[in-house]
Amino acid sequence: MIIMGIDTAIRCTGYGVIDVQSVNKMSILDCGVIKNTQSMPHSECLRRLSCGIRQLAETFKPDVVSIEDAFSGRNVKTAMILSLARGAAIAALAEKHIPVYAYSPKTAKKAAVGFGGASKEQVASMAAALFNINITDIPLDSTDALALAICHANAASRPELSFLLPKPV
Amino acid sequence: MIIMGIDTAIRCTGYGVIDVQSVNKMSILDCGVIKNTQSMPHSECLRRLSCGIRQLAETFKPDVVSIEDAFSGRNVKTAMILSLARGAAIAALAEKHIPVYAYSPKTAKKAAVGFGGASKEQVASMAAALFNINITDIPLDSTDALALAICHANAASRPELSFLLPKPV
Repeated sequence: MIIMGIDTAIRCTGYGVIDVQSVNKMSILDCGVIKNTQSMPHSECLRRLSCGIRQLAETFKPDVVSIEDAFSGRNVKTAMILSLARGAAIAALAEKHIPVYAYSPKTAKKAAVGFGGASKEQVASMAAALFNINITDIPLDSTDALALAICHANAASRPELSFLLPKPV
Repeated sequence: MIIMGIDTAIRCTGYGVIDVQSVNKMSILDCGVIKNTQSMPHSECLRRLSCGIRQLAETFKPDVVSIEDAFSGRNVKTAMILSLARGAAIAALAEKHIPVYAYSPKTAKKAAVGFGGASKEQVASMAAALFNINITDIPLDSTDALALAICHANAASRPELSFLLPKPV
């Protein structure tokens, strides 16, 4: 099962793609960020995000995508801008009929690293060990996306974590 | 100039397409709604919305799109769901490089009907008179979209209303 984790945001969207062969065997296919400059209008950010996610989906053909859920513990304006990015991303994936599951950042990090408050650096060092790659190959802004992918891998394949599995978005 | 007004929402998105020949001469090309049932998951609603808007853009080739702005006078959850729909719509239009302008519903109705608090029925009857069509041909859920299109037509072509013209989204 190929899982792509996406940590959407209007200016910097992290992604991480993993290949889950079995409960205890997973490898990393790619991780990185889709960056938009501060000066870009929202429409251009959404266009780049939408195209970028479509390209990733075509390249890696994920069976499923794991994204951050729409938690509302932010101010309304921030939540609305984040939702613009989520809407563009979910639409691009839905057009390819790829199911999308959403987890809170805390759930994702707890399921991936064992600690919901883990820092980006802690997730990066756990991911480097898990996938046996160099920590410098993991952009810090892709660590939340990797945690989301690992979280879904665990929720979907480990019976003791199946209670975490949400309904698709 | 072809202007498409879009009143986005996750369950029912209204649209109205007008052809502006000159300051005092405009005709209607189409109006209607993209409906999603209550039981559809968000991803399916966004897929249908995104595809629907792309099809409308391909059919009518609008020079510009006028949408409702992201006003925050709603609760956070409603605002976030509305923003999902806006994100999917703006991304679909941005991929076709169609500029998008946003107006508040009040500004749109004031510029179109002369009264910011106009009801859907009032907008429909004004639009029926303006375009010389039967009021029963205007779905009530498309009236806000028509007001958005007329508002942009006025802001873009009437010097005395040019102060309304916002920056593209």
